[in-house]
Amino acid sequence: MKLPIALSNRHIHLSKKDIEALFGEGYELTHFKDLSQPGQFACEEKVDVVGSKGTIKGVRILGPARGETQIEVSLADGFALGVKAPLRDSGQLEGTPGVKLVGPKGEVELERGVIVAARHIHMHTEDAEKFGVVDNQRVKIRTFGERAVVFENVLVRVSPKYALEMHVDIEEGNAAGVRNGDMVELIAE
Amino acid sequence: MKLPIALSNRHIHLSKKDIEALFGEGYELTHFKDLSQPGQFACEEKVDVVGSKGTIKGVRILGPARGETQIEVSLADGFALGVKAPLRDSGQLEGTPGVKLVGPKGEVELERGVIVAARHIHMHTEDAEKFGVVDNQRVKIRTFGERAVVFENVLVRVSPKYALEMHVDIEEGNAAGVRNGDMVELIAE
Repeated sequence: MKLPIALSNRHIHLSKKDIEALFGEGYELTHFKDLSQPGQFACEEKVDVVGSKGTIKGVRILGPARGETQIEVSLADGFALGVKAPLRDSGQLEGTPGVKLVGPKGEVELERGVIVAARHIHMHTEDAEKFGVVDNQRVKIRTFGERAVVFENVLVRVSPKYALEMHVDIEEGNAAGVRNGDMVELIAE
Repeated sequence: MKLPIALSNRHIHLSKKDIEALFGEGYELTHFKDLSQPGQFACEEKVDVVGSKGTIKGVRILGPARGETQIEVSLADGFALGVKAPLRDSGQLEGTPGVKLVGPKGEVELERGVIVAARHIHMHTEDAEKFGVVDNQRVKIRTFGERAVVFENVLVRVSPKYALEMHVDIEEGNAAGVRNGDMVELIAE
């Protein structure tokens, strides 16, 4: 059975506190466009990410605000910044490295929050039934074309709030030669 | 059966004519360090690659000189340059896009030569016998670890001049979470 894949570029989820520190007191994020997951949106706002070895300018903020700031980069981004970003599921920030964020109204020196997001699948509860998988199951995903790969160890996340989509980062997507919306095959074992 | 993997960063193989155009008449490339394949070496020399959308500065030259100049980039590099780099085996340059190279003594406007190198395995003739594969066969390669992938459609190149090694680009290597020298498994089908 097949589902669509999407490539996530580097991005940042900000806490309310960090939004105010970077953009000013009482600041509200500006909606730029909806993302595929219901309620999630890309913002107009961007900030610079500053590591010990380098800076990545203009990294986009995704909304809405979260409980804790999380910076999602690729392995290559981590090398460029000089940050050893570990592979983690979203929200698993224990023991992750920090980085400096620079906004138009201020800076934030984070003690933790930089991760490489582990590839995963969002599924609505009804999709999970159709695919015969459950929340937190690990599956394989096969892509198609001349650069075909099988991604092993893919986490399935099931919720009535999710839309069906596999998320990989830019390096994973390019390694497989896939583009946003390409269909991939789920292999449950 | 297993073999080591290596990640190729962006690099350039230059023709004798283009070496002279970029570095001056009669110029000889300077040996920096040997590569794993016998007779191949990284050079001290670097040049800038200029595309319609952007420039990548300081791309390393590999020696020795070849019959025709070939620029090997990642898909992400191609997007940054504004060049639609196709996936190709080394030397297959028909229909590939060109780019401008800028050296210390001159520039070269190439009509073709930019590729994303297709992943492949170099094997000595004796290795091929051990693995039970032949030149030009396509096989699968499985990597290990939390970001494990299976690369399908991997070209096997056999020669008494080759040393046993799989070559992927940086995006493929990072997508699999592997480093230079990590062991991967060959699956012949």
